[in-house]
Amino acid sequence: MKTAITPTRAENFSEWYQNLIVAADLAENSPVRGCMTIKPYGWAIWELMRDEMDKRIKACGVQNANFPLLIPIEFFNKEAEHVAGFAKEAAVVTHYRLKMIDGQLQPDPDSCLTEPYIIRPTSETIIGEAMSRWVQSYRDLPMKLNQWVNVMRWEMRPRMFLRTAEFNWQEGHNVFATHEEANVDARKMHRLYADFMEQVLAIPVIMGEKTPEERFAGADHTYTTEQIMQDGKALQAGTSHDLGQHFAKSFGIQYQGIDGKLAYAWTTSWGTSTRMMGGLFMTHSDDDGLILPPAVAPYQIVIIPITRDDTADALNKYADDLGDKLRAAGIRVLVDTTDMRAPDKMWKWIKRGVPLRVEIGAREMDAGTVTVTRRDIGRDSKRVIGTDELIATANDILRDMQRDMFNAASARNKTMIHDVDNLDALDAALGAGKIGFFRIKYDLTTVAAFDALMEKYKITRRCLDDADPEYVFVAKSY
Amino acid sequence: MKTAITPTRAENFSEWYQNLIVAADLAENSPVRGCMTIKPYGWAIWELMRDEMDKRIKACGVQNANFPLLIPIEFFNKEAEHVAGFAKEAAVVTHYRLKMIDGQLQPDPDSCLTEPYIIRPTSETIIGEAMSRWVQSYRDLPMKLNQWVNVMRWEMRPRMFLRTAEFNWQEGHNVFATHEEANVDARKMHRLYADFMEQVLAIPVIMGEKTPEERFAGADHTYTTEQIMQDGKALQAGTSHDLGQHFAKSFGIQYQGIDGKLAYAWTTSWGTSTRMMGGLFMTHSDDDGLILPPAVAPYQIVIIPITRDDTADALNKYADDLGDKLRAAGIRVLVDTTDMRAPDKMWKWIKRGVPLRVEIGAREMDAGTVTVTRRDIGRDSKRVIGTDELIATANDILRDMQRDMFNAASARNKTMIHDVDNLDALDAALGAGKIGFFRIKYDLTTVAAFDALMEKYKITRRCLDDADPEYVFVAKSY
Repeated sequence: MKTAITPTRAENFSEWYQNLIVAADLAENSPVRGCMTIKPYGWAIWELMRDEMDKRIKACGVQNANFPLLIPIEFFNKEAEHVAGFAKEAAVVTHYRLKMIDGQLQPDPDSCLTEPYIIRPTSETIIGEAMSRWVQSYRDLPMKLNQWVNVMRWEMRPRMFLRTAEFNWQEGHNVFATHEEANVDARKMHRLYADFMEQVLAIPVIMGEKTPEERFAGADHTYTTEQIMQDGKALQAGTSHDLGQHFAKSFGIQYQGIDGKLAYAWTTSWGTSTRMMGGLFMTHSDDDGLILPPAVAPYQIVIIPITRDDTADALNKYADDLGDKLRAAGIRVLVDTTDMRAPDKMWKWIKRGVPLRVEIGAREMDAGTVTVTRRDIGRDSKRVIGTDELIATANDILRDMQRDMFNAASARNKTMIHDVDNLDALDAALGAGKIGFFRIKYDLTTVAAFDALMEKYKITRRCLDDADPEYVFVAKSY
Repeated sequence: MKTAITPTRAENFSEWYQNLIVAADLAENSPVRGCMTIKPYGWAIWELMRDEMDKRIKACGVQNANFPLLIPIEFFNKEAEHVAGFAKEAAVVTHYRLKMIDGQLQPDPDSCLTEPYIIRPTSETIIGEAMSRWVQSYRDLPMKLNQWVNVMRWEMRPRMFLRTAEFNWQEGHNVFATHEEANVDARKMHRLYADFMEQVLAIPVIMGEKTPEERFAGADHTYTTEQIMQDGKALQAGTSHDLGQHFAKSFGIQYQGIDGKLAYAWTTSWGTSTRMMGGLFMTHSDDDGLILPPAVAPYQIVIIPITRDDTADALNKYADDLGDKLRAAGIRVLVDTTDMRAPDKMWKWIKRGVPLRVEIGAREMDAGTVTVTRRDIGRDSKRVIGTDELIATANDILRDMQRDMFNAASARNKTMIHDVDNLDALDAALGAGKIGFFRIKYDLTTVAAFDALMEKYKITRRCLDDADPEYVFVAKSY
């Protein structure tokens, strides 16, 4: 069977993904090493995700602010684990002027900075410095801040959405008086991320704590939400960190308690990024292109009038009217009256994953009917219904689709999570080419053998099992 | 009379402005040279401005996208005027890794980039490169793109909101088949900016074209919206550029016409930034702090229960209920039930410019009344009204205030725009310490004398008069 995307997922998942991004017009590699350009259709998806996430974050009493893009190296250097974790991928600003020298435009040597800056890979340090001034008394706590910004981590093996040198994200930074409050907060934001992914992106997640080796550089606990892609690989999509007093001590975030005594505060940080879009695309799409959950679809319905020359005007007007009625029901609708051929339009919007396709021909217009097709089911869902029925039930159809997509992904995940009794069983399963997540007892006495197996199959520890933290999930990962 | 901000505007406008920013908790200077941190209250104002501007831009058929932060120097160098205009303030990224050398963390010499990047000061170049690939045929035109991003221009004399090394803005970039369409578009976005400032920010603007000397580096025409601050100085707040074919030719943006022939396209670009916030603050505020137009006030109404110990619970609950009713009317409300003293709360929200202050004491609660005060008028507007009346009329009060603030600023502007007949008259007026905008015939035969006068009084050409482009406005400026 001919598919819109070649190769298919089964043939070459990785190439399929690259071609999907192109076919759905989401993004492209830019002339800047490791950086992508997010095209309008991709950015429209991100805006929907961002607005919904922002609403949920604000509902937790978090306020948005905006901190500088550049970080003085001395700040960055204050927390030892942090700098060790990020120094190897930091973009460094060393000059502030260009000059034509020998016919070539280059950094003006006279503009060399005595203290270079790095472009933020994350902002614990510069926000920590601000908080050390903003937090004075227990009355200032908790202090909850977030920012939606771009960050940069020089990536050697970039991949669109999944791993790019520059990416867009939100990073939240909260301060508390006690460790308990901070830890509760880190877990609360962890839960918020999981809810967002499940309810909005229709992606079931595995929640758990990272093992010490996989923690954020400078955290006491890192909580992660792991997604399982269709090829069985893991995608870490959102993390929340209990930072203990690492940053409070490095930056002097202290508060005067009710008792009048000065004490170090406890901080958390938590972030989700455009990386989630990679997870969204790799979880739901098929060999014909993108499939978007209605909640984050820029157009939830596309109306395609199938015109002949003699009926075009009337039909286009009819389609426009129907579009307005569906918009009045709160639905994002595109009426495609461009001069492309109808089958080309159809394929364009299939590839772009519009949840519901509505086609109208002249005869249907006269009969007061339309043909609707759900993108996730395809031709088996194709049916002719009354225009009025569509208007009355469109929101239900979209809600059903949102739920069905989550259920389908959950059902697939179940087939991809495997319990293994011991390292030999894990070795056997991986050796036999089994894909997915493997749940195994995390026996610290066999770490060396564990590591050898991870090296052999290029798998990593994803997280401890929240239900029983003596077990760990391991998988290949993005 | 004691004022909340010292010095007052009359005593020292410039210091007053700095202290206003602190008193209203809007922003602070950051440890990064020339960069500010925008605090939650300031950022909340920006979010309201951004969302409204975004809506208006999208209504013009413009789509948002996201282009890289970094620009290869070779791109930047392709348009001669452009590079001359921006090279002197470009932050340059030269390394991609840090290393501990002699006990000091510094750029790793082994990570030196053969082609350095600059942090975008504006994105005509990198977007031009993309458009050269995206635009193929007349069917692709017009192409209308915008992005909301941070940019960087190394500033030697930074000033919060008005002139910072890093700032947030939207930059629109449109492509057309003909020069006429491009010019119409540049003027249309110019008008959109003026409408936004007048309708949303309540700031009357002077619209006009920049003289050749003041044009954007690489434009054929630059249209500007100039605001008049309370000290008579000009603030350029939004510009729209007809770029002719400068960037189309530098980057090869060509399209195949209906006739099958390849032709260079015509481009525009247009931007507004966080700088507008400086104009907002300097236009409306007074010696007691900020005054926010309701359209961009994070809280349009603050309710302050004036509690005694025995009535606190009932009164706070009453205030919360009133808050909910006003929210149901679509108003952004804060009920301040913190444990500050009532007069301290009052001054806090006066300084932060909340449009309408509502105070309730126990006796008023019993009588079903509240005391309301409009921030722009102050004590003369203080009156006791029924709670039901407040709920019924709050939107009207806010709408009146929005209009009155615009009218007040317009009336003041009228006193600040002066017609002068010739350079001698201009010299006399400025010598006598007159402030504001001076409108004078732009006589190209006397440019040398004109320039000498501009140098003498540190004034600049702001723009030609749209009503009669033989005249030019000159003024001191931010």
